[in-house]
Amino acid sequence: MTTYNIALLAGDGIGPEVMKEAVKVLNLVEERNADVNFELNDVLFGAAAYFATGKSFPEETKAACDKADAILKGTIGLNHEDSQKIPVDEQPERGALLPLRRRYNTYANFRPVYLPKGLAHFSPLKESVVGDGIDIMLIRELVGGLYFGEKETGTDSDGKRYVREVLEYDEDQIRQIVRVGFEVSMKRKKVMHNIHKSNVLKSSVLWNAIVEEENKNFPEVEVVNILVDAAATYLCLKPTMFDVMVMENMFGDILSDQGGGILGSLGLMPSACKGPKKSYYEPSHGSAPDIAGKGIANPYSMIGSVALMLEMSFGMDKEAKNLWAAMQGVFEDGYSTSDLSKEGEANLVSTAEFGDMVCAKL
Amino acid sequence: MTTYNIALLAGDGIGPEVMKEAVKVLNLVEERNADVNFELNDVLFGAAAYFATGKSFPEETKAACDKADAILKGTIGLNHEDSQKIPVDEQPERGALLPLRRRYNTYANFRPVYLPKGLAHFSPLKESVVGDGIDIMLIRELVGGLYFGEKETGTDSDGKRYVREVLEYDEDQIRQIVRVGFEVSMKRKKVMHNIHKSNVLKSSVLWNAIVEEENKNFPEVEVVNILVDAAATYLCLKPTMFDVMVMENMFGDILSDQGGGILGSLGLMPSACKGPKKSYYEPSHGSAPDIAGKGIANPYSMIGSVALMLEMSFGMDKEAKNLWAAMQGVFEDGYSTSDLSKEGEANLVSTAEFGDMVCAKL
Ligand SMILES: CC(C)[C@H](C(=O)O)[C@@H](O)C(=O)O
Ligand SMILES: CC(C)[C@H](C(=O)O)[C@@H](O)C(=O)O
Repeated sequence: MTTYNIALLAGDGIGPEVMKEAVKVLNLVEERNADVNFELNDVLFGAAAYFATGKSFPEETKAACDKADAILKGTIGLNHEDSQKIPVDEQPERGALLPLRRRYNTYANFRPVYLPKGLAHFSPLKESVVGDGIDIMLIRELVGGLYFGEKETGTDSDGKRYVREVLEYDEDQIRQIVRVGFEVSMKRKKVMHNIHKSNVLKSSVLWNAIVEEENKNFPEVEVVNILVDAAATYLCLKPTMFDVMVMENMFGDILSDQGGGILGSLGLMPSACKGPKKSYYEPSHGSAPDIAGKGIANPYSMIGSVALMLEMSFGMDKEAKNLWAAMQGVFEDGYSTSDLSKEGEANLVSTAEFGDMVCAKL
Repeated sequence: MTTYNIALLAGDGIGPEVMKEAVKVLNLVEERNADVNFELNDVLFGAAAYFATGKSFPEETKAACDKADAILKGTIGLNHEDSQKIPVDEQPERGALLPLRRRYNTYANFRPVYLPKGLAHFSPLKESVVGDGIDIMLIRELVGGLYFGEKETGTDSDGKRYVREVLEYDEDQIRQIVRVGFEVSMKRKKVMHNIHKSNVLKSSVLWNAIVEEENKNFPEVEVVNILVDAAATYLCLKPTMFDVMVMENMFGDILSDQGGGILGSLGLMPSACKGPKKSYYEPSHGSAPDIAGKGIANPYSMIGSVALMLEMSFGMDKEAKNLWAAMQGVFEDGYSTSDLSKEGEANLVSTAEFGDMVCAKL
């Protein structure tokens, strides 16, 4: 009997709703696997934590995460207005999410831009562009760059306000993420798109040099260097040309959300954030405060994050595969949530119904 | 009789080819307007200039630009391999383009993401997504941020290579571009999307504060704050929700190229770069070294840049309008270039033929 301790960070907005469905699925997977035991530990995180404790990443939550085998995170954040009620440094992104990433050094963020042919109708792209389906593994560096560099705000001698913030990388940081890119490429098509902006950024010049060096350790992988702006063009125009894409933090933030756009919704993009010792899993979408509590949020990307956890943290590949199939099966049966479809195009189901249907298929 | 001196910076790759078509059009416009005289001054710029003179932005070119009433630029840049033959600081982007922007402080970059319904078939997006057409004025800050901040590359005491580069803005820099956004919004739908990343970047926090302050001077304009990642999602999912978008330099680089993607090609995106005293005009696409010299490059975005110059630098609104209509007319007649269409979908024409057809329509 193996016991896995999982910290559940439901968070804000639709977080608790979609987390509930993730727990349903986890319970079922546990039931089906006599030799696996999930110990679930619900803890506060984000704005919810701030309003309850004055800290958006409280000590108790840190302790729960420290002892967990894996962390499952919902969504965090409030709408623009409400978030002004929290001091800038305790706002959920700066006070909870970034410190979580930093604490466990989760440098490798995996965001699959995956749209099998059967789900192509969700995409804003023409059928001819989606072709036989889109299947990109977007790999984003998650604990460096502008996100974590020094920041300075002030007023100069003329009374003029200014701000300076630093984009920084060293070769070790770049090397570790680039290696992940090569390793994943070796298991896939052996073609890696390296996203950069070396015609302007010196950080990209170093980045590209490391890619070239590491390529010697993975000589079978063909590296295609592509400027971030060109990548943004082609991700719309010809997404099927990409298999593995590797990039720094800010580029990854923007391009992965563009990826969500071409899928039809960020609700179709689960994600894994891998550190040397611990990983956490989260949907790529936000907390959608406008629809929170309505029971209409799509739990696909949250449940998909469970699938990624089963595979990447617990080695339960078969269970993960079945879970993906179950989720896609629900769509294929003509059910959908309202972020993806309009009444009439599909049978619209609620968050909980979607979760139930996935369980029924499992 | 008014004489306008125009510096022509044809540049590299397909630059000279598309510039030739721009000149054709300029000659015709001059012929038709008895009271206007264009003085065209062809000068070297980019890699072409570097190989001829050792400088990618030579003194002679600077002098020509200094005295010009407007600057018309083609494209610059070589392929990855060839550009390695030029020292980093003389590479066309760092050695010519960025210094050009800096020299004339062309802080306001206008990139129309404009796709009338009649051209919707060029887009990778579904007809239902393009709807009645896409008409976004994307406004990008062009002389600040990461592009021009201090850069430091080095090796630390452990022999580890590192790089640091600074994203910086002061309130005046932000204010001047934000005002342009408001002014343009006033002439359009009075809704401005402000693109930011204030949940991570302190520069966005200052940026948003200035937007709020300036909004008081333009109370009729509704500001919609949207995170850059969400903007990347919605630019694919629902581009018709945007009218004016304002953003800092690097975000603008990426989102405007994404805009090119949704149009079907950057070949459909001309651009204007406006400074306090002088402006320059350029296609948004690159120099496409792979197709240079083949006569197949699409000159739409170069000729569109002429239209923007006529309107914005010379006040020749009527001529600009006619030029747009002529260009669209060529497409509507079923002609196209090979970057936009495949044989069979349209009558494919060469760069020169496209230019001739535009002139014939004028
Ligand atoms: C919430 C925010 C800090 C975060 C990021 O920018 O990394 C989010 O957009 C994401 O992509 O996970
Ligand atoms: C060539 C490059 C320096 C430039 C930029 O990044 O600004 C280009 O991509 C653009 O968008 O005009």
